[in-house]
Amino acid sequence: MEENYFLIDCGEGTQVELRRQKIKFSRIDNIFISHLHGDHWFGLAGLISSFHLLSRTKDLHIYSPPGLKDAIISQLRLGQTHLSYFIHFHELEGKEPKVILENAKLIVKSVPLNHRIETYGFLFEEKKKLRKLNAPLLRERGVEVCDFRMLQLGNDVQSIDGKLIKNSEVTFDPPEPLKYAYCSDTAYYEPLVDWLAGVDVLYHESTFLEQNRDLATKTFHSTAKDAATIASKAKVNYLILGHFSSRYRNRDVYKEEAKRYFQNIEISEAGKIFSFENK
Amino acid sequence: MEENYFLIDCGEGTQVELRRQKIKFSRIDNIFISHLHGDHWFGLAGLISSFHLLSRTKDLHIYSPPGLKDAIISQLRLGQTHLSYFIHFHELEGKEPKVILENAKLIVKSVPLNHRIETYGFLFEEKKKLRKLNAPLLRERGVEVCDFRMLQLGNDVQSIDGKLIKNSEVTFDPPEPLKYAYCSDTAYYEPLVDWLAGVDVLYHESTFLEQNRDLATKTFHSTAKDAATIASKAKVNYLILGHFSSRYRNRDVYKEEAKRYFQNIEISEAGKIFSFENK
Repeated sequence: MEENYFLIDCGEGTQVELRRQKIKFSRIDNIFISHLHGDHWFGLAGLISSFHLLSRTKDLHIYSPPGLKDAIISQLRLGQTHLSYFIHFHELEGKEPKVILENAKLIVKSVPLNHRIETYGFLFEEKKKLRKLNAPLLRERGVEVCDFRMLQLGNDVQSIDGKLIKNSEVTFDPPEPLKYAYCSDTAYYEPLVDWLAGVDVLYHESTFLEQNRDLATKTFHSTAKDAATIASKAKVNYLILGHFSSRYRNRDVYKEEAKRYFQNIEISEAGKIFSFENK
Repeated sequence: MEENYFLIDCGEGTQVELRRQKIKFSRIDNIFISHLHGDHWFGLAGLISSFHLLSRTKDLHIYSPPGLKDAIISQLRLGQTHLSYFIHFHELEGKEPKVILENAKLIVKSVPLNHRIETYGFLFEEKKKLRKLNAPLLRERGVEVCDFRMLQLGNDVQSIDGKLIKNSEVTFDPPEPLKYAYCSDTAYYEPLVDWLAGVDVLYHESTFLEQNRDLATKTFHSTAKDAATIASKAKVNYLILGHFSSRYRNRDVYKEEAKRYFQNIEISEAGKIFSFENK
C-alpha cells in the first residue's frame, strides 16, 4: 500500500527471493511474523544481517508472538554482530484483533488465528482518503489554492469574491479505502467471519483438500473449502489461496474445490503480483 | 570420502542447494561449522527441521565453536518442534589441531584459524588402506580365502601345503591415504604451514586480492597470494580458492594472483565437484 513495503513472514531464503524480485531492501520498515514455526521466520536473522551489511540506519519494526527477540539477539550475538540500526521488537498478544501499527495512511491489526502454536493473521486497513478536486472548475469558480486542503477534507469554502462553494459541487468521492487480510497458518476459525467482514482481499491458507480432512484437523490447517467458506461468509471480494501441500498433483485442484463455495479465487505462487484498487 | 557425506558450514539456503545437487539428506551424519558468523550457520536450523520432516531417526553430529547448541535449541523450541532424532553437539576448542572424529576409515581434526571470532578449519585424513591382493597368483600358490585378511593387513601367510607366502610377492601397495583440509575464514596464518604439511587438497579462502590488502588485514581475511603462499610452503598438491568478494569483475583475477606463488589452483563455485584420488 502506497510506498510502504510490508513483509509478512520470513522463511529461509526470503532474502534470495526478494533480490530475485528486485525489491529494494531499504523500503521494508515493518516485518510481521505470524508464528514461530521455522518455515515462517528462519530467514529473518539473515535478512537482518543483510540490512546491516547494506549499512541500514533506519529503525526496523518486527511484530511477532513472544520469544522471537531473544532468539534473534542470541543468533546475532554469536557472530558478534553489532547492527548499524535499531530493531523494535513488538510482541503480539490478545484474543481479539488489536491495532499494532498506525500511520497517516493505514492501520494494521493483529488477528488471532487457530493453529498448533500461538499464531496471528494481519489486517491492513487504509484510512479514508482525501476527496478529489475538480481542478478546472475550481479555477473557474475562483477558489484559492490555500483552500484546496479544506475541500479535500470535505469542507465547504468561500471563493475570492465571497461566494459559498459547496464541497459536493467541486470535488469527487475518493476511492474507497482498501482492506487486505492475511491468514496463515490456521484451522477453520469462525470468528474470522466477523473480524474480516467486507475486506477487499483475503489471503487464507489452504494446505489441504477435503479428501484429507483428517490431516487438516490433526495439524490445525485449512482445506480449500474452509478458506472459501470464510471468504463467502465474510463477504470479501477476492480470496487468494496459498500454503499448499506438495501431496497434490497440481494447484488447480484447490481452485476447483474452493469454487464450489466462493467465486473470486486466485492461486498464489512465488513472485506473483496481485494488484487491486478501488475506484 | 567413501560413502560418508560431510557438510562443512551451513549458510542460509544450504538445504536448497543440497536439493538442487540431488544430495541425499540421509547420508549426512556430520556437520562441521567453522565459526558463528551468520553466513556460515543460518541455514542449520532449517536443515535440522527438514531432517525431522523427513522422519530421520539416525543421530546427527554437529561440531562448532561454543554457543551453537543454545541458539539452535532455542530456535526449535519456539516452534515447539520435538525432533525425531538426537543431535550431539560437539564444542571445538584448543590452540592446536585436535582429533574430533574418528571412524574405521578416517580421522577428522579441528585446526585453529585466525579470524575476527573463534574459527576452526577441518583436516580430513584417510586411514592407511588395506593392501591389494593379486588374486590369480594367490589361487596358483594355494592360499586359503581365510588368510586373505592377514595378507591385506601386510602379514605373510602359509599356503595349503605349508609353504611360506611372502606378503610382498602376492600383494600390491594400496593407494596412499588422502588428506583434505578446509580453511575458511582466516587471515594468513603461518602455523597452518606445519599443521597442513603435505595434504593432497587444500581449500583456503581468498576473499581479497593484494590490491585490497588493507581490507584483508582489517577483516581478518586472506588474499589469493596468502592462500597460495600457505599452499606452497605446506607443499600441498592442489589448492582450491573460495569465499570470493563480489568487488572484483570475475574470478580469474584470483587465479592470476595465486599462480605467481603456486601452480595447481582450482576455483570453487556452487555445485562444482572436485574429484581427487591417489593410485
